[in-house]
Amino acid sequence: MTNTQATKIAVLGTGGGGRAHAAKLAGLGYEVHVGTRDPQATLARTEPDMMGNPPYQQWLADHPGITLNTFAEAAAAADEIVINGIDGANSVQALTAIADAMAGKVLIDYAVPYLYGAEMEHPWPTPWGTMPKLDPCDTDSLGEQIQRALPAVKVVKSFVTQEQETVVNPKTVGGGEHTMFVAGEDTDAKKAATELLTAYGWSDVLDLGGIVTARGLEMHAGMHSAIGLALGLGTPFGVKVVR
Amino acid sequence: MTNTQATKIAVLGTGGGGRAHAAKLAGLGYEVHVGTRDPQATLARTEPDMMGNPPYQQWLADHPGITLNTFAEAAAAADEIVINGIDGANSVQALTAIADAMAGKVLIDYAVPYLYGAEMEHPWPTPWGTMPKLDPCDTDSLGEQIQRALPAVKVVKSFVTQEQETVVNPKTVGGGEHTMFVAGEDTDAKKAATELLTAYGWSDVLDLGGIVTARGLEMHAGMHSAIGLALGLGTPFGVKVVR
Repeated sequence: MTNTQATKIAVLGTGGGGRAHAAKLAGLGYEVHVGTRDPQATLARTEPDMMGNPPYQQWLADHPGITLNTFAEAAAAADEIVINGIDGANSVQALTAIADAMAGKVLIDYAVPYLYGAEMEHPWPTPWGTMPKLDPCDTDSLGEQIQRALPAVKVVKSFVTQEQETVVNPKTVGGGEHTMFVAGEDTDAKKAATELLTAYGWSDVLDLGGIVTARGLEMHAGMHSAIGLALGLGTPFGVKVVR
Repeated sequence: MTNTQATKIAVLGTGGGGRAHAAKLAGLGYEVHVGTRDPQATLARTEPDMMGNPPYQQWLADHPGITLNTFAEAAAAADEIVINGIDGANSVQALTAIADAMAGKVLIDYAVPYLYGAEMEHPWPTPWGTMPKLDPCDTDSLGEQIQRALPAVKVVKSFVTQEQETVVNPKTVGGGEHTMFVAGEDTDAKKAATELLTAYGWSDVLDLGGIVTARGLEMHAGMHSAIGLALGLGTPFGVKVVR
């Protein structure tokens, strides 16, 4: 695949998840357009981010062929697929602002709607503090909120049940013998997401139905964290739907 | 095992889940004491219950060796383990009323805290109507509520991620190659629950930690229902933690 023929894909967000997708997609031959709120500010940073990721300019130098731009410019550059790696609390607002650039395109959303810092009467202690509250939860989902806010965009909720390093390298767990899920209103969009997952190495992708099922996927965050802590932080694992 | 030496175990609730456990336990040689709110009323019913289960007196006639009694009498009869099959909305109240009968014993709780009939701005339609709301959810769990209400009882949340017919017959799915979870404050109580699960046929039981992790297990209800609907209602399935 030469660069002029490469499929253009956008990844919004420069955190660990966004980096995992951007690096994998570049390796697969995609022309990767990464979006960030303020590219100059992102490139000016010289310290690791709050999750300990190295400064983005340094990461970018190690990953040639990836373009950093604004959210809107990256989304506009995508041929078909935009991946949302913006944090859950800011996703609806940031995506609504660039809705026009994504009209008719597929938006794969993996954000967890964590509301950090919300006080709880009964906190769930973890080694890093407490589990953040989900908002929305159960009676709505971030996936649905995004779909309602961007009716001209084909939203697919996926990836969210896994660490993003495992999403892009599924065969590192059980030889890939575990399950990934897609949820959304548009069948073709879910097919496009499934093809991308197949390129990542997934062989079992289960279509859960409409975007309303994003509730189940987002609420899996609690069980995902509990399993991860039970196995030992950093132990890779997957969840296989046996049937 | 003769009847006089049999371990006495209590199952609270006469619905489909309670029946599955009672029948399995009787088959395993336990002396099974089933508890219900009003035994006379339960035995007087001649119509199927709202889930289509046959009248209890008829079921009981087909399952000799099972004793029906009040919640308190059944719980008091148990040597060590009481299984809570009371519906989520009524569990805390019904169990609090019989706390003394369970002091020092293990209570395995599999109830989902569904609040049926709660109106939602964004309902989740299903073939049977809508998904019921979870209450509590995310910032608390029914498992924790029960443990707080009954401090002298060793609460273990388990079974809840599965249909109870599969819980008692795990090998009907993937030869048993899927995962069951236990959560609770008391290590010996989780050991007792795990031994019961082993007798049921489970080979992979994962201890998630304290009772707070019941949140993850209860919130899995959404994904469990979504997977079940995606595979086709009634298709048995399990979830395996691949690691």
